[in-house]
Amino acid sequence: MKFFRDNINEMQAYIPGEQPANLGQIAKLNTNENPYPPSPRALEVLRGYTDGNLRLYPDAMARDLQLAVGDVLGVPSDWVLPGDGSDDLIIMIARSCLAPGRRVVFPTPTFPYYKTQGQIAAAEIVEIPTSEAEDFRIPIDAVIAAAGDVTFLSSPNSPTGVAIDPDRLDYAAEKLDGLLVIDEAYADFADANALKLLEKRNNVIILRTLSKGYSLAGLRVGFGIANPQLLEGVLKTKSIYNVGAIPAAVGAAALRDQTYHDECVRKIIEQRGRMSQELSARSCKVWASQGNFLMVTVPDGNAKSICDGLKDRDVLVRYFNNPAMADKLRISVGSKCEVDKLLAGWDSLELK
Amino acid sequence: MKFFRDNINEMQAYIPGEQPANLGQIAKLNTNENPYPPSPRALEVLRGYTDGNLRLYPDAMARDLQLAVGDVLGVPSDWVLPGDGSDDLIIMIARSCLAPGRRVVFPTPTFPYYKTQGQIAAAEIVEIPTSEAEDFRIPIDAVIAAAGDVTFLSSPNSPTGVAIDPDRLDYAAEKLDGLLVIDEAYADFADANALKLLEKRNNVIILRTLSKGYSLAGLRVGFGIANPQLLEGVLKTKSIYNVGAIPAAVGAAALRDQTYHDECVRKIIEQRGRMSQELSARSCKVWASQGNFLMVTVPDGNAKSICDGLKDRDVLVRYFNNPAMADKLRISVGSKCEVDKLLAGWDSLELK
Repeated sequence: MKFFRDNINEMQAYIPGEQPANLGQIAKLNTNENPYPPSPRALEVLRGYTDGNLRLYPDAMARDLQLAVGDVLGVPSDWVLPGDGSDDLIIMIARSCLAPGRRVVFPTPTFPYYKTQGQIAAAEIVEIPTSEAEDFRIPIDAVIAAAGDVTFLSSPNSPTGVAIDPDRLDYAAEKLDGLLVIDEAYADFADANALKLLEKRNNVIILRTLSKGYSLAGLRVGFGIANPQLLEGVLKTKSIYNVGAIPAAVGAAALRDQTYHDECVRKIIEQRGRMSQELSARSCKVWASQGNFLMVTVPDGNAKSICDGLKDRDVLVRYFNNPAMADKLRISVGSKCEVDKLLAGWDSLELK
Repeated sequence: MKFFRDNINEMQAYIPGEQPANLGQIAKLNTNENPYPPSPRALEVLRGYTDGNLRLYPDAMARDLQLAVGDVLGVPSDWVLPGDGSDDLIIMIARSCLAPGRRVVFPTPTFPYYKTQGQIAAAEIVEIPTSEAEDFRIPIDAVIAAAGDVTFLSSPNSPTGVAIDPDRLDYAAEKLDGLLVIDEAYADFADANALKLLEKRNNVIILRTLSKGYSLAGLRVGFGIANPQLLEGVLKTKSIYNVGAIPAAVGAAALRDQTYHDECVRKIIEQRGRMSQELSARSCKVWASQGNFLMVTVPDGNAKSICDGLKDRDVLVRYFNNPAMADKLRISVGSKCEVDKLLAGWDSLELK
């Protein structure tokens, strides 16, 4: 359509995972949501929002959230840039840093949204493939050699579950001239994170979200952490009041309830181990994961038919419509009950 | 900073109006919020959000909101594109349609965010000045002659309060080859709107918000209305889950409570008339407004000192740091009580 830029006309829209209108009996293991409800303290704050304050614009920087992140993660609050989910931060970074003639680099497979944003910016897109033979480890030197103006490294990475050692990330940050975005959407479930890099590397921005570890995907809260000089440039492309009053306050309360968070994470890691063991026992190749999901190579190589079969049994898992992933599924770690349902569904499939 | 595009380094960030952390006794008439609380029915829906559904991603198209807009405004629901405030829609349109070599056109003074988005896109920016001598009427033929790939017309316009007759907007849509964005953020308070244009003009997108007429600035809900072919291109730059589950449900309930909405609007229009009369009686030139605000030329020509003086008296009004607006204030229409406070504050100023 003539109204749109050529690159917009040519690109495909990002297609999100299926969100059924009513969950009913469905075990929803397709979009890496948390199986547990949000913190009771967060829900208590939500109940406080019955008065008329919603008539006022929220604080443009979601100050409550900045303060909570600062306290909980031990970073200065002005190093925190709140977003309408961490997708919003990815968009801001792309808008501030990418354009024709500038390059975005990321390993594949990964979150397809980095590519989407590169396409919107009409930037040069360099994908660094990881390989099954190398257990999908990120080839850091190849990533560095690609010399991105922006490099996205998701750690732990979806869909593979592979995390990058913080020392390797530090090495990448040191060698890269451009901006290094470390997407830690799944860091809550990992052995380590890269927060310590922020002190010495001025080209690093870390992304976090409350959608996974804090059971608040429906609230839309994410944030970036970086030095204020760096945030100043990213901020210029922020929507004025991008985070509403409710997400800011409820998100802050969820962050401050670390006891509840830690208990949810503990249970998810426990079920991740069980799922891995049980699916391996069913002849799947289960890839080691530091996220709240497992990537699985299915025994008969036909992941689509298993995905469809499980769907018929009210179990949603993620199949990627991508030839390189034809034999793989990504399955979110559910509650004990949901994992039971997955395994029962699996056992009732007529696998060839 | 080398990480950012040159145009980002060169541009200034948009500076929103002041949002005091605690309102206390302040009459906040600086950012065109609604003085009345949101619909009680909307707040009732909010109270329903104490369960665990927030752990799930929201519907990517905020279906509840689409349906409510469809029912209330009499448009097909798939003509509705929900946003994280209408700012979010302005951003999507800019990202999908603007780039170097493409042109954005808008009259001035207006919402400065159109320019901000043109700067971010590094597009050609053509500002069509309106003049005091012509009562800030929009010179439609000059706007058309500027031949924008995207033309923004805010009606009613802030800060002037001037609305454009729907027939004139229709004429502009007919003559323009590019996209015409009619920003109706303030249409709730106006005599007419441009919805009927959507049926016959395939290059029109209308923007609405719940921040003004529905007292929900803190919730962050806006939407665009256009034919689905047009929305398809705009949609490609939407953040995946841009509207959270709470804004979608609460916003839908607010929209469906038209009785409450109409009563709030009626009271605001009543106070707008009273404010206009009273400020005129205090030697202000009050410009005719179809919004929930008045633009006022102050008697001594020094709007800054009046803004500061009123602030000392707990009354916030909007002063624009812009030479062309040095003798003008934009004052939101408050409740009767807030208007009383404004007038008492005004009378206690020592005007030269």
